[in-house]
Amino acid sequence: MKIAIDAMGGDQGADVMVPGVLQARDQFPEIEFLLFGNEDKINALLNGDTKHITVVPTTEEIGYEEEPVRAIRRKKDSSLVRAAMAVKEGMADAMLSAGNTGALMAAGLLYVGRSKYIERPGLMTTLPVATSDGGTDFIDLGANAENKPEHLNNFAILGSVYAHLARGIEKPRVGLLNNGTEATKGNEVTKQSYKLLAENPLINFIGNVEARDLLMGVADVVVADGFTGNAVLKATEGTALAVMKLMKQSVLGMGIRGKLGALLIKPALRQVKAKMDYTDHNGAVLMGVKAPILKTHGSSKPQTVVACIDQIKTMVGNNVIPEIDQELAVLQQQD
Amino acid sequence: MKIAIDAMGGDQGADVMVPGVLQARDQFPEIEFLLFGNEDKINALLNGDTKHITVVPTTEEIGYEEEPVRAIRRKKDSSLVRAAMAVKEGMADAMLSAGNTGALMAAGLLYVGRSKYIERPGLMTTLPVATSDGGTDFIDLGANAENKPEHLNNFAILGSVYAHLARGIEKPRVGLLNNGTEATKGNEVTKQSYKLLAENPLINFIGNVEARDLLMGVADVVVADGFTGNAVLKATEGTALAVMKLMKQSVLGMGIRGKLGALLIKPALRQVKAKMDYTDHNGAVLMGVKAPILKTHGSSKPQTVVACIDQIKTMVGNNVIPEIDQELAVLQQQD
Repeated sequence: MKIAIDAMGGDQGADVMVPGVLQARDQFPEIEFLLFGNEDKINALLNGDTKHITVVPTTEEIGYEEEPVRAIRRKKDSSLVRAAMAVKEGMADAMLSAGNTGALMAAGLLYVGRSKYIERPGLMTTLPVATSDGGTDFIDLGANAENKPEHLNNFAILGSVYAHLARGIEKPRVGLLNNGTEATKGNEVTKQSYKLLAENPLINFIGNVEARDLLMGVADVVVADGFTGNAVLKATEGTALAVMKLMKQSVLGMGIRGKLGALLIKPALRQVKAKMDYTDHNGAVLMGVKAPILKTHGSSKPQTVVACIDQIKTMVGNNVIPEIDQELAVLQQQD
Repeated sequence: MKIAIDAMGGDQGADVMVPGVLQARDQFPEIEFLLFGNEDKINALLNGDTKHITVVPTTEEIGYEEEPVRAIRRKKDSSLVRAAMAVKEGMADAMLSAGNTGALMAAGLLYVGRSKYIERPGLMTTLPVATSDGGTDFIDLGANAENKPEHLNNFAILGSVYAHLARGIEKPRVGLLNNGTEATKGNEVTKQSYKLLAENPLINFIGNVEARDLLMGVADVVVADGFTGNAVLKATEGTALAVMKLMKQSVLGMGIRGKLGALLIKPALRQVKAKMDYTDHNGAVLMGVKAPILKTHGSSKPQTVVACIDQIKTMVGNNVIPEIDQELAVLQQQD
C-alpha cells in the first residue's frame, strides 16, 4: 500500500507532516510513503531515516487563501497537485493533505477523478456522539454549493458503505438532515430526497433527522446538501468553541474559588475537549472519487496524521471504494 | 397598550402564563391584558385579582403535534386563534403564546396578516454573544422552507429596524449567513441576496458571516433563508446542550474530586447556562406581520413571560412595526 503525502500543507507544514509520517511508518510497516514537498526541509526532518519513505521534490506550495481551481491549474509543481497526480498515475493508492481544502477537493475531482457512477462527490467527516463512543458520518460538508436529490441519494450510499466497511457498523442507520422529523417536512430538495432515500434498497433509511440531534447518535450516517451541511457543521464547531470559551471566562471571573474548581475538574474538561476535537481523530474524506483523498486540519499534530493514515489504511484494506462503485452500479441499473 | 395572551399554550399552559401575566401587570401598570383560555382554570389562578386583566373564555386548545394550518382553521375557538383574532380586530396591539409555533405563525399570517410590503414574514430571535453582553438578531428561523433573495433583503430591514428601535443599536451591522466570507461565495440564493443587500441603502451591510461566528458578535443582525436558519439554530442549540451534558457526565465520572470541583464552579456553570438559555430572556418574533406576534418557549417560567411582555412593550412603544413599513415603502419605491 502506497500513500502520497502533501508534506507542505497546514499551519506548520513539513514540521508536523514528517514526524507524523515517521510515527505512522513505525506503526504500519506494510505502508510505503511518498512525501511531496521541499526536499531540503523534508530531508532535514527525516534525518536520514528513509525506510519505506521516498521524498519527491516539488517547487511550489498552495496557500490557504488561494482560489482553489486557479491554484491547482497554475501550480502544477505544488506538493498538493503532485501528490494528486501520483494517485492518478497509480503510483499511490491514496492521498493525505493538511492544506487548502478547496484546492484538495478540486485536485481530487480534476486529477484523481470522480467514480464513474457519481455526478457530485461529497466531503464527509465522522462527528462524535455526546452520549456514547459512537460516531455519525456527516456528508456533504460543503464540496457542493447546490445539490439535487439524486446527489443526496448518492451521498447516502457513500456514507453507508463507509460506515459499514470502515467503521464496522452492520446496517448503518441513514438519516436525512431536515427541518422537522415528519416525512412531509422540508424544502423541495429534502422532500424529493426523502422519497429517493425511502425507495433506495441499498441503505437502511430511518427518516429525517434534525440538526439539534446531530451529536446525539440518532443515526450512523446523516446526509445533507453541501450548503446546509457546511452551515450546520460550522454552527456545531462554533457553538462548542463558544461554550468552552464562555465556561473558561466565567470560571476565571470567579477568582481563586473558580481556579481551584477548574483545577479539580481539569481531567473532565480535557475529556470533553478531546471528544469535541473530532478532527484530531479522523480526517475529512472526499467521497465519490476513485481513491481515498483525505484532509486533516491545518493545525494537526503528528498523532492526527497517524490517525488519518490509519483511516486510509482501513479504507484501502477493506475495499471501501470498489464496494461503493459496486453498489452505485446496482442503483444505476435499477433506474 | 393591550396584549392578547394565549393562556393555554406551552408545557404547563395557564400554570405559567397566568402567574407570568400577574408579575408583568405589577411591573407594567400601563398594560391591559386579555387572557384567552379555560375560564375556570384561569380564574382559579387569578384568585380574584383581575386588575388590568380580562379573561376571555375559549373552549378549544391546539396541541404541539397538530398540523398548524388545519388546526387554526378547524379550532376557531382555540385560545391561540381567539388571541390572534383579537389582534386582527384591533382589540389588542400584540399577542404572546407558548404554544405550537407553526400554528402561531399560521395564525399570524392568516388572521393578523402580513405587512402590505412583505411577501414572506420571517421568524426572528436574539441570540447571545459569547464574548460580550451583546446579541445578534437571527432571521429567518424557519417560517419559510424556501426563500428568494428578495425575502432575505426584506429580512435585513425587519432585523435592522428591530435592532435599532428595540435594542437601541445606532447602525446595526447586518450580515448574510453564507458558507464563506468572500463576496463570491454561496449558492444561487445567497449570491443574489448578497447583491441586493449590498445595494440596499437602508441597511448597514457588512458582508457574509459564517455559522462558526454566529455567537461571536460579528454582526447585530444575521439573515438566512428559513431552511438554513432553522438548521443552524437547531445545530447551535443541540451542540450547546451536548457540550453541557458531556461536561456533566465527565465531571460526575471523576467521583468525589469531580463533585467537589463542580460544586466550586457551580456559579460559573449557572452563568454559562443562563447565557445559552437565550429563550429565557426573549421570545421569537414573527416579523413582517401587522402586529408583534411573540412565541415564548414551551417550558417557560413566569419570568420568561415577563421578559416577553417587556419585549412587546418596547416594540409597541418604539413603533417598530410602523417604522418597518415606512422603510419597506421606501425600498419598494426605489424598485
